[in-house]
Amino acid sequence: MPKHFKKRSEKGGLPPGTLAYVGEKKVEKVIITVFDYDSERYEEKELKSIEECFPYKDTPTVTWINMAGIHQVDIMEKIGNHFGIHPLVMEDILNTGQRPKMDDLEDYVYVVLKMLNYNEEDDEIDAEQISIILGQNFVISFREKERDVFEPIRERIRKNKGRIRKKGADYLAYTLVDSVVDNYFAILEKIGERIEFLDEELVENPSTQTLQEIHGLRRELIFLRKSIWPLREVISELERGESSLIKESTGIYLRDVYDHTIQVIDTVETFRDMLSGILDVYLSSISNKMNEVMKVLTIIATIFIPLTFLAGVYGMNFRYMPELEWRWGYFTALFLMASVGIGMVIYVRKKKWL
Amino acid sequence: MPKHFKKRSEKGGLPPGTLAYVGEKKVEKVIITVFDYDSERYEEKELKSIEECFPYKDTPTVTWINMAGIHQVDIMEKIGNHFGIHPLVMEDILNTGQRPKMDDLEDYVYVVLKMLNYNEEDDEIDAEQISIILGQNFVISFREKERDVFEPIRERIRKNKGRIRKKGADYLAYTLVDSVVDNYFAILEKIGERIEFLDEELVENPSTQTLQEIHGLRRELIFLRKSIWPLREVISELERGESSLIKESTGIYLRDVYDHTIQVIDTVETFRDMLSGILDVYLSSISNKMNEVMKVLTIIATIFIPLTFLAGVYGMNFRYMPELEWRWGYFTALFLMASVGIGMVIYVRKKKWL
Amino acid sequence: MPKHFKKRSEKGGLPPGTLAYVGEKKVEKVIITVFDYDSERYEEKELKSIEECFPYKDTPTVTWINMAGIHQVDIMEKIGNHFGIHPLVMEDILNTGQRPKMDDLEDYVYVVLKMLNYNEEDDEIDAEQISIILGQNFVISFREKERDVFEPIRERIRKNKGRIRKKGADYLAYTLVDSVVDNYFAILEKIGERIEFLDEELVENPSTQTLQEIHGLRRELIFLRKSIWPLREVISELERGESSLIKESTGIYLRDVYDHTIQVIDTVETFRDMLSGILDVYLSSISNKMNEVMKVLTIIATIFIPLTFLAGVYGMNFRYMPELEWRWGYFTALFLMASVGIGMVIYVRKKKWL
Amino acid sequence: MPKHFKKRSEKGGLPPGTLAYVGEKKVEKVIITVFDYDSERYEEKELKSIEECFPYKDTPTVTWINMAGIHQVDIMEKIGNHFGIHPLVMEDILNTGQRPKMDDLEDYVYVVLKMLNYNEEDDEIDAEQISIILGQNFVISFREKERDVFEPIRERIRKNKGRIRKKGADYLAYTLVDSVVDNYFAILEKIGERIEFLDEELVENPSTQTLQEIHGLRRELIFLRKSIWPLREVISELERGESSLIKESTGIYLRDVYDHTIQVIDTVETFRDMLSGILDVYLSSISNKMNEVMKVLTIIATIFIPLTFLAGVYGMNFRYMPELEWRWGYFTALFLMASVGIGMVIYVRKKKWL
Amino acid sequence: MPKHFKKRSEKGGLPPGTLAYVGEKKVEKVIITVFDYDSERYEEKELKSIEECFPYKDTPTVTWINMAGIHQVDIMEKIGNHFGIHPLVMEDILNTGQRPKMDDLEDYVYVVLKMLNYNEEDDEIDAEQISIILGQNFVISFREKERDVFEPIRERIRKNKGRIRKKGADYLAYTLVDSVVDNYFAILEKIGERIEFLDEELVENPSTQTLQEIHGLRRELIFLRKSIWPLREVISELERGESSLIKESTGIYLRDVYDHTIQVIDTVETFRDMLSGILDVYLSSISNKMNEVMKVLTIIATIFIPLTFLAGVYGMNFRYMPELEWRWGYFTALFLMASVGIGMVIYVRKKKWL
Repeated sequence: MPKHFKKRSEKGGLPPGTLAYVGEKKVEKVIITVFDYDSERYEEKELKSIEECFPYKDTPTVTWINMAGIHQVDIMEKIGNHFGIHPLVMEDILNTGQRPKMDDLEDYVYVVLKMLNYNEEDDEIDAEQISIILGQNFVISFREKERDVFEPIRERIRKNKGRIRKKGADYLAYTLVDSVVDNYFAILEKIGERIEFLDEELVENPSTQTLQEIHGLRRELIFLRKSIWPLREVISELERGESSLIKESTGIYLRDVYDHTIQVIDTVETFRDMLSGILDVYLSSISNKMNEVMKVLTIIATIFIPLTFLAGVYGMNFRYMPELEWRWGYFTALFLMASVGIGMVIYVRKKKWL
Repeated sequence: MPKHFKKRSEKGGLPPGTLAYVGEKKVEKVIITVFDYDSERYEEKELKSIEECFPYKDTPTVTWINMAGIHQVDIMEKIGNHFGIHPLVMEDILNTGQRPKMDDLEDYVYVVLKMLNYNEEDDEIDAEQISIILGQNFVISFREKERDVFEPIRERIRKNKGRIRKKGADYLAYTLVDSVVDNYFAILEKIGERIEFLDEELVENPSTQTLQEIHGLRRELIFLRKSIWPLREVISELERGESSLIKESTGIYLRDVYDHTIQVIDTVETFRDMLSGILDVYLSSISNKMNEVMKVLTIIATIFIPLTFLAGVYGMNFRYMPELEWRWGYFTALFLMASVGIGMVIYVRKKKWL
Repeated sequence: MPKHFKKRSEKGGLPPGTLAYVGEKKVEKVIITVFDYDSERYEEKELKSIEECFPYKDTPTVTWINMAGIHQVDIMEKIGNHFGIHPLVMEDILNTGQRPKMDDLEDYVYVVLKMLNYNEEDDEIDAEQISIILGQNFVISFREKERDVFEPIRERIRKNKGRIRKKGADYLAYTLVDSVVDNYFAILEKIGERIEFLDEELVENPSTQTLQEIHGLRRELIFLRKSIWPLREVISELERGESSLIKESTGIYLRDVYDHTIQVIDTVETFRDMLSGILDVYLSSISNKMNEVMKVLTIIATIFIPLTFLAGVYGMNFRYMPELEWRWGYFTALFLMASVGIGMVIYVRKKKWL
Repeated sequence: MPKHFKKRSEKGGLPPGTLAYVGEKKVEKVIITVFDYDSERYEEKELKSIEECFPYKDTPTVTWINMAGIHQVDIMEKIGNHFGIHPLVMEDILNTGQRPKMDDLEDYVYVVLKMLNYNEEDDEIDAEQISIILGQNFVISFREKERDVFEPIRERIRKNKGRIRKKGADYLAYTLVDSVVDNYFAILEKIGERIEFLDEELVENPSTQTLQEIHGLRRELIFLRKSIWPLREVISELERGESSLIKESTGIYLRDVYDHTIQVIDTVETFRDMLSGILDVYLSSISNKMNEVMKVLTIIATIFIPLTFLAGVYGMNFRYMPELEWRWGYFTALFLMASVGIGMVIYVRKKKWL
Repeated sequence: MPKHFKKRSEKGGLPPGTLAYVGEKKVEKVIITVFDYDSERYEEKELKSIEECFPYKDTPTVTWINMAGIHQVDIMEKIGNHFGIHPLVMEDILNTGQRPKMDDLEDYVYVVLKMLNYNEEDDEIDAEQISIILGQNFVISFREKERDVFEPIRERIRKNKGRIRKKGADYLAYTLVDSVVDNYFAILEKIGERIEFLDEELVENPSTQTLQEIHGLRRELIFLRKSIWPLREVISELERGESSLIKESTGIYLRDVYDHTIQVIDTVETFRDMLSGILDVYLSSISNKMNEVMKVLTIIATIFIPLTFLAGVYGMNFRYMPELEWRWGYFTALFLMASVGIGMVIYVRKKKWL
């Protein structure tokens, strides 16, 4: 998690608005695709050069420019200049350590989100920053990675499913945000499963492994919380509809995403609560187990230490030890030891230590 | 609890407003009943097909359509279309992982609640989602299960008890909400009893079982809290009466439910506090018990280890050990051991370890 | 504490506004007393039947009807009907599990409070619900028990002490609220004394008893907090003076009660903080004590186990053990043992374990 | 701390506004001093009787009446009547268990503060209640004790240092409040030093004493917090300048005190955080120390118990034990024991227990 | 940390507005540099005496006076008087224990910040107070130390990089604030690295050293939080642009710094969460390790104590012990011991203690 702060300082003394990519290079080549559609027709293109998308800016149809890969600063600068995006906003798009936020800059609305992805292999969550610029009739989306999370949306445009082709650019932007939030549910399910698994394992067989698991999940929830918490405010601001770019009819959809976000936050908090409950139970289980072991030690010691002492006494080499000469001395001693031993066991049982 | 997130992701890429039931199928067949009443007369019917309820939409009398079972998407679609319910709302009704909320959509008010049921057999709480659509003069309620929690209300309509037949649809909707909130008190009583039982058991006989109980109750309170907390806002919004569908005279009743909700939330918080107190006492009791056991070990060891050493000394086979030859050597040794033993006991008692 | 939820559910399916007493019967017979006064004269009566108080409703003098015992539903219904009190309010008066609250119903103001009483015998706090109806020139107070907490106020009316006879019904209502809040200070003093006592005992002699005490006090503070916290809002609402029944000149008195309430809440929070501090110290003390015991065990074992081994070696029966034949073998062995023992003690002391 | 609640209840049934001193008598005689000044001249007097200060009420010059000792109810009543102070305010002045607060009563402003004093001898903080009445051109200050904390202010008036003689009564009131707040910094320094000392001691030598120290400091911080927290609101209300008695030009000075108050609160919170960190480290240190001791026990036992067993075996008195007859039997046994012992030590070291 | 309170009290009774340096003297000589620039030209000077900068006050160009070292009270007084800075503000500049804050005094805006510096040598953070006075067309910055953190800004002015020369004094002030906030990221990176390092070390090899590290980091985060938390409000107040000195076009830049500040606060909170997670894991690891050691002790004792007892029995010197005479007695005894030992090991393994 603290990785996001690594490169930030390298940008140190540069004047604000200077573009520099802060993050790892996650794709080889920048892939730019353009969708241009209205309710009647649609056009889909993969661009060779960024300049090809410039003419779409002023068409009355809805244009969606999607960039996968943001590490080529020159391309970013060109697109920023052409679409009139403020240098500070461009800087934010390139700096992948952003906090989710929403800026209304009158000509366009700028939204930053965190797309999370659950990595099955090493049970870790990795984040990708998604920036969305919503203009009068265009949407530009910037992603760090190639993995195509927006494919279902593209499919809907192609097949004219649902309302998407009938609505404007603001509805497209909502759809993008919605698909990011929907993705959180998948992450939460995975985490929920792991917590449930942990909860069962806890009762049956608490191990040091369990502690590592709890710690790992806690770290992930801290991370998730940091990514999701500010989202609430972002979508609430979008919904309150102060921007003229967002039509009132889109309001109900944004409200729906808002509800989902609240639900996600609620669940994260619930998971945190459950996890701290699990940690408590884990710690108690461990100390209970220890107690059990200690008790056995105590009982063994309580029973045998006095007996060993008795054996020691009759192992002494004094010349005059009358008991030693007795015919039944040995058996009396054995009987004595057995009595003491059994008495101890009874005492221990009465004290409920066994 | 995390079960609610299981199926959510299966809906993944579908466009918003697509109807799909998210939840377990809890009844075999959908049961639809209709009540139509005013202060003079009432009519009660169980419907064969959903179309039969359509004519009631525009009658001046109050109509209550109650659906038990929401898994038949086609029926849901028909009713949604006829009563002009927004597809997103229909989606929410079908998705049983909703958070309690209230949406005012001008033509109707949509309320989602969680009906909780305490399962006596396995001491668990299960939740059922209840959706209520309040229109001009109709109320549609959707439930997941057959179990008829609204029977007392039906009885009141039939027998014309209280004000229900004299009042409009908003009062009917209030009655439904009220019966859900009243149900929470029953749940809280059960939990209260278990906490009280735990509290007594704790003093008498703390066991590993107790820890499992505390953990279970904590998990249930987390779950309850998640279901009940948002209710406060829901009812407060209803009460503030911004919707024209809710008459001012219903305000005082809503305020009453609001007070009950606050009381429920208060009690949940109090229970959480008490439970964390019980956990603290449990942990201390366990560690006190362990201390007691440890002390016994220490005392046994403290007394017998030196004695065993003494016995060992006189068990050595050196040729010249003058004590061994003494006439009263053995008895002197025994006396010495007794003195050391008694001295140790006195020391231990003085230190207040026994 | 969870007792308050016991009977609530028995009222289950009844329509709202149906009167039924929820609580224990705390007095045998209902006692109704009436005070009627203005600055010139006063009249005091104990009523045989409730109807006798009806004529006082419309007199210009201030009338105070005080009911001790609210379990006779028929009497309650009559008084409710005559004074025009809303059935929901009457329901709240009878349901003794209310949260402190204030309702302004234009014709009258309804206030619910919790009178707390410290039971010296079993060191427990029990609560009694006090409902106050403030009308144009009458005050009706409902109490569950006979114990007369309002006697000093009555005395003041009789002897015309202070301002009470010169002021209206709102001042009387304030006086009742004030006497309830004043009572909290007495409770807090008792708890404060017990915390102070605990704090001293802790240093001198922590025992399992102490833990029970801490747990008990914590439970009481949770209970107190639940009763007192909502009071703040109640009095603040009264003070803000939105009701025309409360004259502006009474405002400064209400502000005074408000200050007292804040002081009470502050103190409860401070006590909670102190108690959690005491719990921490208790737990540490217990574990410190345990450590001390463990150390002694360790030291005894550390010293004697090697010595016992040495004794064991010379107790072996090998034929050829040259040391055994030496003239000074025994004394050398004893000397060796002493050296090892003393060396161990020095080591242990250097390690600061003793 | 809970001392403040001791006497409160003794006032039980008295009507509000009845004057009675609640607190300890901290000075023998009440000392009343009067300062009367404007920018040109000043007059200083110690009064014999309270009546002497009455004529100053209506002079155009600024008058400062300072009372040390408030236990003589008759004097208090006279001054209250002459300066037209509301009986409830007089009651608050006499009741030394007040929470810091500010009341604007149009003709005058009433401010209660807590002056704290660090008692070097027993490392405790004791509080004194300071009440300030700010009128049109007079300030009356009431203190419980003789100790003259306002001497530097008096000196400033005498020597005409700073702005004090040029400004009005509100500036004088500000100066009094400022000197109280400034005093908090001295307290915080003392506590800061003790925390720093504790922090160092912790690393070098944690002892049971340390725990007592942490507990004591925590209790003091709880006390400080209770005294200082409400101050923020008090000064903020004064600053917002809704009273006509406080000139706008005094606003910037009040803002300055406000900043200091926030700084004090900040520091108290920081100290609380640090202290809870220190407690955590203390507890861990103690348990680490215990672990170390336990390890030694384990190692000694692990090494010698098997060896002692071996010695025991060869100490058995069986007739046919071939090893005993061997020429080198004894030395073989010793060698075996040494091997086992050294093997154990190596194992223990490998496990990193030593 | 508590160092900041050390000298504060020495100023005790002085009237407000009296200048006295509260802090350590961190540079030998005060260094004053002046920058005067507009978009066309710039001038840079190091001043011999403070009077040299006075003429710049009224030039239309932007003037930046930077003072390193604030301990010479006479210089401070002169500059305060010439630029018309209120004595209370001058007092705040000299008192280095300020909390970050912003004061709008109409003619100028006063901002206090904490510049933090990570000291690589002793892994500690030290703070320096930076005061900024923003006037109509001048900015005065006061620093305690010589270390030139503003050099990159100076470089930008010299080389006319970015917008700085084209914008006014408010933009310069923003740049200063921005460079302070940017610096926090560097600190956070260092701390992030140490937390990551701790997290890894924890799994591999928890030691007492780790606890010291956790404690140290916690203390640093408390310190950071205290310095950074109020910043949020400061910048938010600046951004809301109520001062006429801050042009609207600077708003977007301030918003950017605000976002950064929120990000810093977020990260500090995340670090705190992570650290408390690490502490939990550390404590569990330590107690797990202890458990492991205890188990070995128990097992050794469980196995050997009964065996030693058996050996003791056959070491007794009774005359008639038939077993001792048997031909195979010794081997039977050995076999018996081996059986008991192996049985114990099997039991222990079955109980999963090994």
